[in-house]
Amino acid sequence: MKLATFTAADQQFWGVVASNGMIALSPDFPKWKSLRNVIEAGAVQTVLDAAIGRPVTHAEGTFRWDIPVPDPEKIICVGVNFPDRNAEYKDGQDAPPNMSLFIRFPRSFVGHETPLTRPPETPQLDYEGEIAIVIGKGGRRIPEAEALSHIAGLTLCNEGTLRDWVRHAKFNVTQGKNWDGSGAMGPWLVPFTDPSQIADVHLQTRVNGDTRQDDRTGRMLFPVARQIAYISTFTTLVPGDIIVTGTPTGAGARFDPPVWLVPGDEIEIEADGIGILRNGVVDE
Amino acid sequence: MKLATFTAADQQFWGVVASNGMIALSPDFPKWKSLRNVIEAGAVQTVLDAAIGRPVTHAEGTFRWDIPVPDPEKIICVGVNFPDRNAEYKDGQDAPPNMSLFIRFPRSFVGHETPLTRPPETPQLDYEGEIAIVIGKGGRRIPEAEALSHIAGLTLCNEGTLRDWVRHAKFNVTQGKNWDGSGAMGPWLVPFTDPSQIADVHLQTRVNGDTRQDDRTGRMLFPVARQIAYISTFTTLVPGDIIVTGTPTGAGARFDPPVWLVPGDEIEIEADGIGILRNGVVDE
Repeated sequence: MKLATFTAADQQFWGVVASNGMIALSPDFPKWKSLRNVIEAGAVQTVLDAAIGRPVTHAEGTFRWDIPVPDPEKIICVGVNFPDRNAEYKDGQDAPPNMSLFIRFPRSFVGHETPLTRPPETPQLDYEGEIAIVIGKGGRRIPEAEALSHIAGLTLCNEGTLRDWVRHAKFNVTQGKNWDGSGAMGPWLVPFTDPSQIADVHLQTRVNGDTRQDDRTGRMLFPVARQIAYISTFTTLVPGDIIVTGTPTGAGARFDPPVWLVPGDEIEIEADGIGILRNGVVDE
Repeated sequence: MKLATFTAADQQFWGVVASNGMIALSPDFPKWKSLRNVIEAGAVQTVLDAAIGRPVTHAEGTFRWDIPVPDPEKIICVGVNFPDRNAEYKDGQDAPPNMSLFIRFPRSFVGHETPLTRPPETPQLDYEGEIAIVIGKGGRRIPEAEALSHIAGLTLCNEGTLRDWVRHAKFNVTQGKNWDGSGAMGPWLVPFTDPSQIADVHLQTRVNGDTRQDDRTGRMLFPVARQIAYISTFTTLVPGDIIVTGTPTGAGARFDPPVWLVPGDEIEIEADGIGILRNGVVDE
């Protein structure tokens, strides 16, 4: 069973995904305004149980998918986290001792099946397929050995990037990573109950059916448990926080010449046990 | 007149600063939970008017200063924004064509007169004195010529940094800039009504009375209007968003050998027309 956030007739709901639509549950639990509140309350199982035997409230085609947790306190992204990614930089540097981190704002993401936005300022829109974890139990200085027990669920992320804006300034990638609607998250949240759900999962990105990124989470330079431990060293993680765990080699920027996304393209991010996140591209 | 957020007996209030304490106004305006909501409602003047003739509700010494806007959607910081700052990097690079940007979380800041936290992981706690602007009217692709009219108010920021953690990874400064309670913002919000409040203001940082940073905003490489225009190119600014506008040369890291903050130090950030932000340092 999977949890999702969606909008119908300008009203946002959260609920459970059925094969032919959505079972809206937010009207039954008004005290929890978003899935972040459900997670904070430790009520994921309560909500899943409440969906059993319920009819679909919103049939397929009558709603828009939103990002699963629309109001996280923070979204932290891990950069350069697969073996060949460091080499792609061609800067002669060894793999770094610690993970690169940057921040994205929720407004830089759309949900499943909403097209990514290519702004008029640059044609260099690029994909990055990733798995995102959502924190369930917060904490500070979480030991690596306990870290996976702090995960509430998993989702997918197209960590869409405007490449030339990543290198606009002396340092930091903030502006290339935060264009409104330039990335996507979803379709849903898969409850996390077992370390095997993240340990060595196949992750693939396809553009118009052509495989561009293809790797396994078991090859991460900084595995998810290490990410949670390291990040919580300096900042308190709270329920609903999202960590975007890093992308394999093969983004469009790495082709010679680079291949950017254009209107009409369809990008699919797929991971075992999570699903497929699918988005088009439109000009703003 | 100045607006502030503060806590007394575990309850957070917002209100107006008087010479001998605070005039809490949040109980009279329950629809506005924080100063962010006051700003969103365009009600800064309404609130200032409401304070006239009111007695102090919380005398000096009976409350804790909080950061003025405790719940902004985003806090965006501008790096390397004074003439000698680029040279301080000693990397032979010319001044960059665009501003470096990074993000801080609200929990990385304390209010006026609460000590900064030095964590056990590193002794390299450093100050950076800056002026912060708070957005009043939101927007996207705000023209530079209109940008200053989007400011609701000004405050001060000690953009406290754990220096070795800034360079932990291949790129980005995220982890050195986001230690819980490592920086400060405040004391209050000065309503912005005239461009002269930011055009060429004297900004100074003192540690134990010793002047360490001393410059004028007129010397910024990227003036505030340019910051608002550039940032709003890629992300929609909303009321309550904070831009931390950059620090002059003279942080502790630039001394040879570097001089880090230690428990017992007192740091004062002062700017003409805004006030003084004062904080100590304690070990966690």
